[in-house]
Parts: sequence; C-alpha cells; structure tokens
Amino acid sequence: MSQNFNELITYSKAFSGLTPELEAHLKVIAPVITPHLKRVTDSFYDQLATIPVTEKFLSGRIEHLKSAHLRWLTDLFTLNVNAQFAEAMYKVGDIHVKVNLPVEFMAGAMTLINNELIKLVLETLGNDNNESIKALQAINAVTGVALMIMQQSYQASSLAEELEKFLKISGMSRTLFTNLAKAYN
Amino acid sequence: MSQNFNELITYSKAFSGLTPELEAHLKVIAPVITPHLKRVTDSFYDQLATIPVTEKFLSGRIEHLKSAHLRWLTDLFTLNVNAQFAEAMYKVGDIHVKVNLPVEFMAGAMTLINNELIKLVLETLGNDNNESIKALQAINAVTGVALMIMQQSYQASSLAEELEKFLKISGMSRTLFTNLAKAYN
Repeated sequence: MSQNFNELITYSKAFSGLTPELEAHLKVIAPVITPHLKRVTDSFYDQLATIPVTEKFLSGRIEHLKSAHLRWLTDLFTLNVNAQFAEAMYKVGDIHVKVNLPVEFMAGAMTLINNELIKLVLETLGNDNNESIKALQAINAVTGVALMIMQQSYQASSLAEELEKFLKISGMSRTLFTNLAKAYN
Repeated sequence: MSQNFNELITYSKAFSGLTPELEAHLKVIAPVITPHLKRVTDSFYDQLATIPVTEKFLSGRIEHLKSAHLRWLTDLFTLNVNAQFAEAMYKVGDIHVKVNLPVEFMAGAMTLINNELIKLVLETLGNDNNESIKALQAINAVTGVALMIMQQSYQASSLAEELEKFLKISGMSRTLFTNLAKAYN
C-alpha cells in the first residue's frame, strides 16, 4: 500500500488537536521535560513487568527495548511533526504486527506513558495553570498523533497478514485471488 | 468469539494504570466534572466538523450522536469499571466496524476528548496540584481502558469481516475453509 505521508500527518494532526501553537509549545517545554524522560521509560517498563501477557515480549530484551523506547519518546518532543515523522511512526506500527504484538498494546502503552507524563508536567510546571494546560494538551496531542498513525499502519499490516493466511490455507494463488476480487467488485 | 469480560477488564485496567485508588477517585470528581461534560461533547463535535473525512459519518445525525456520546462520556465517570463496563465498550468497538468507521477514529476521538478534559480539570481543580495529578491520571486511565477494549473488539470484528470478504470472493464455503484451516494447522 502506498501511503501519502503528507496527507496522513495533516489528517492526524487535525484529529488529535495538534495545532501549530501546541506543536511549537512542545519545543518550548522539551528542554525541561526531556532530561526526565528516562524516568518515564523506566517506570513504563516496571509497570509492563507486572502484566503477565507482556512477559514473553520483554524477556531478555528489556535493556534494548528501553533504549529504543527512550529515543522514540524523546523524538516526540524534539522532531518536527511532518511527513517524515508520520513515516517513522508508520514503520513502528508495522513492526508491531511483525513481532505479533497484540493490537491493544499500543493504546495501553500510550496510556501508561501519559500517566507518567501528567505527573512529570504538573510536578515541573504545576505553578502556572495556563502553562500546564498548554503543556499537557501538547503532549496528549502528539502522543495521539503517534498512536493514530501506528494504528493505521498496524491495521493495514494485519489485514495483509490475514489475506496471506487465507491464501496459504486455501492454496489459492495471489494472482487468482486478485483476478477474482476484480471480477467480484 | 466468546470473550471473558472479567479477564478483559482486569487486563485492561492493569495496562492503563487504573488502580483501585484512581478508580475510586473518578467517583470523587464525578459531581464536579459531569455537569460540564456537555461542553466537552459539543466542543468535540465542533472539532470533528472541521475534518473532511468525518463529514459523511456525521451528516444529518449530529444531535443523535451528541446525546449518545454524552451518555457514554458520563458513564466513564459514574459506572463501576467491571465486566459489564467491558462488555458495553466491546459493543461500541463492534458497532464502529459495522458502520465502517476507520480504525483511527477511536484513538483520534479519545485524544480530542482528553484535550478538553485536561482543560476542564485544570480550570476546575487547578489550585491543588496533587488533586489535579490524581484527577488527570484517573481520567487518562479510564479513557485508556475504554480505548483498549474498543480496539480489541474492532480488531476482532474487522478480521471476521475480512474472512467474510475472502469467502465471498473465493466462492469457498465457510465449512470447507474451516476444515482446510484445521488440516493446515
């Protein structure tokens, strides 16, 4: 599937409320927030470790996963949220299908991460209410953009895998299936 | 697919950080928050109206959708988050597939709603930092639980629809396909 990442990022920003003002604000808070993100990543993996289903995805890989996660999390505050950003997030969704990660892991993970970020922001910027609202909305919006894009890619990849499975089970060739699908439509 | 809603709710709570303390806190803030939820719903649909892709899902149905949405949103603060809650959210995900809502609508919607709730909470409880952290984490966690469950149901329903499509196109009966799948495994 060819994907227009310019369209995808415009659409995802609108659907997450990531306005130009909030996007600019991410860069403003980045120097205050990013030094604490390691704590967010550590706490996230501590919580994952208490959930039995996540065990087999973590076992023996925690340190590697943590450093990839911290890079990804830092990117949310430091990268420009453009077509390249969309392409990177799209790849993350695709990888999640390839390693058979259940669909709900992405929404769950984003929720746990936002719980930590809420605490971090209010402890760091809590004295100024307007600043806190802007910071929390900016973070909520950019994690929302990332989640939307990862899930669109996850959905596309999992339907493609499902078709693969059908073809294997039925013994039908892809060409035959494609021709039948054309005739059917 | 038979679904164990007790297991599903326990799992989703763990994966969203909805602790018993935060769940109890939803009931504490409900009387302060729920009177303002109509404003959250109105603002959510105002923002949806600015996104071209949502047009065909909204046209002529806004008032009906708004009242269903407000009921659903109020439920997040007032219902016990138990197996029945899981079953209700599971149905919502299923309905989203039936009306052909794109997969990313749920994550996007939840992001827009959380943007509004962040503002509402900090404007209402902003003077007490610890109270604000607890309230925002409770809301983020319960919307996370709802999203996780809706998406699991959405995924199950869309794979089922995909199989349906495959059977139609290939002309294969469900019985034949099921028998082949058994032989294949």
